Amino acid sequence: MSNKKRPLILVSNDDGITAKGIRVLVEVMCELGEVVVVAPDSPQSGMGHAITIHSPLKLFPSPVFSDLGVEAYHSSGTPADCIKLAKHEVLAERKPDIVVSGINHGSNTSVSVLYSGTMSAAMEAAMSGLNAIGFSLCDYGHDADFSHVRALVKKITSEALSKGLPEATVMNVNFPAAREEPILGVKICRQAQAAWHESVEKREDPYGRPYYWLSGKFINPDKGEDTDEWAIAHNYASIVPCEFDLTAHHAIGVLNEKWEL
Amino acid sequence: MSNKKRPLILVSNDDGITAKGIRVLVEVMCELGEVVVVAPDSPQSGMGHAITIHSPLKLFPSPVFSDLGVEAYHSSGTPADCIKLAKHEVLAERKPDIVVSGINHGSNTSVSVLYSGTMSAAMEAAMSGLNAIGFSLCDYGHDADFSHVRALVKKITSEALSKGLPEATVMNVNFPAAREEPILGVKICRQAQAAWHESVEKREDPYGRPYYWLSGKFINPDKGEDTDEWAIAHNYASIVPCEFDLTAHHAIGVLNEKWEL
Repeated sequence: MSNKKRPLILVSNDDGITAKGIRVLVEVMCELGEVVVVAPDSPQSGMGHAITIHSPLKLFPSPVFSDLGVEAYHSSGTPADCIKLAKHEVLAERKPDIVVSGINHGSNTSVSVLYSGTMSAAMEAAMSGLNAIGFSLCDYGHDADFSHVRALVKKITSEALSKGLPEATVMNVNFPAAREEPILGVKICRQAQAAWHESVEKREDPYGRPYYWLSGKFINPDKGEDTDEWAIAHNYASIVPCEFDLTAHHAIGVLNEKWEL
Repeated sequence: MSNKKRPLILVSNDDGITAKGIRVLVEVMCELGEVVVVAPDSPQSGMGHAITIHSPLKLFPSPVFSDLGVEAYHSSGTPADCIKLAKHEVLAERKPDIVVSGINHGSNTSVSVLYSGTMSAAMEAAMSGLNAIGFSLCDYGHDADFSHVRALVKKITSEALSKGLPEATVMNVNFPAAREEPILGVKICRQAQAAWHESVEKREDPYGRPYYWLSGKFINPDKGEDTDEWAIAHNYASIVPCEFDLTAHHAIGVLNEKWEL
């Protein structure tokens, strides 16, 4: 053992503290450093970057990871709330060396990053200057197989810890679902220019009143071989470095030229 | 009157269908075209880009704008949900020429765009290829004065309708709160590199259990005169063209060079 201080790793997610994906992530992180978990007490998928400002939040110690000797808390809040509570209450006196979120049960490639609670936890951390990575597995199953991604989760987090992240970015990591062959490697990618083509299903409740279910199909017309979608389809892990400056800098000149205001 | 077909304008917001800001927006839009409203039935501030995928949504006709002869619906969903319901249920047979969201009671400058329900409605529309603008007034008051922004809301929307928006962008428009002097003009800006420095206040409920309130202070170290924050502080309206490709393109090369994966 080296004498170097073990890194402090904050773990969160959006599937809730009892999900299989966060257990795998916590187990892997225990090999790299001291782990503290602050995660939602129930699933928060699709919560985007929601925060809770008009109602109070609950935060309680959780025994979920006591078998691993890991300090853990569950909160009534969203993933972004969990990061805020972690920073200002649980870790008020300490600064995590990295924040990891996931492993999400389901893909967060392409524009799904905008709807992703997993990524919003990572984004929230990055926005306050912390190193942060969101991990997702492209398998929605409650009991999805995560065994093929453990080594890569460890490797990617190790690289981030030792070499750092580009300033003002957050990593969106996606893994292909388990196949017979192992994952072929890791590609640094851009976000595919794809979209969800949603559908709305109208039903009637027992009292004759309408209600609606949202669902959708992911359509990707972007055939670029440098996209996260291409990587996943070809059995590579994808890493998209994301930024939270949403400014379309190229559009500023266009608007100044065309619009008369 | 010209014979040109009047544009179809879809209006939503995040403060809920009865907020003052959406009434002002609907009134102004009625001067420009045919208006349809689909908005949340209650306030949804801070909802980020949340969507509702694990529970059904309600959608009912609303009499709120009947005095203006405007077709309106309120939904139990988030702002992004409202846009999906509008596209696939209310306007299933028609395509809006533009989607406008707001006028938000409160600022959505800088990184607040990521937490903003107002902007998530606009973003959702833009992601499906529609022209979209989010409007916010930097005044949180329930009964804020919107009279000084009416002319500019009309002008900006008219320009967007007649000249179009740069591809794959959505406009984040903020107005300064009413002062004695009128707004000095409109600046096309970049998002200020600022952050919320939140605080967490711990209290105890009547049963002795802890609960927490999130609040925060906006800190802007970015002194650039091309930012939305600068514009608002100097009594200009700001327009930030935003994109939903979050890829930090400059970071791809850096990661390929530095990380060994």
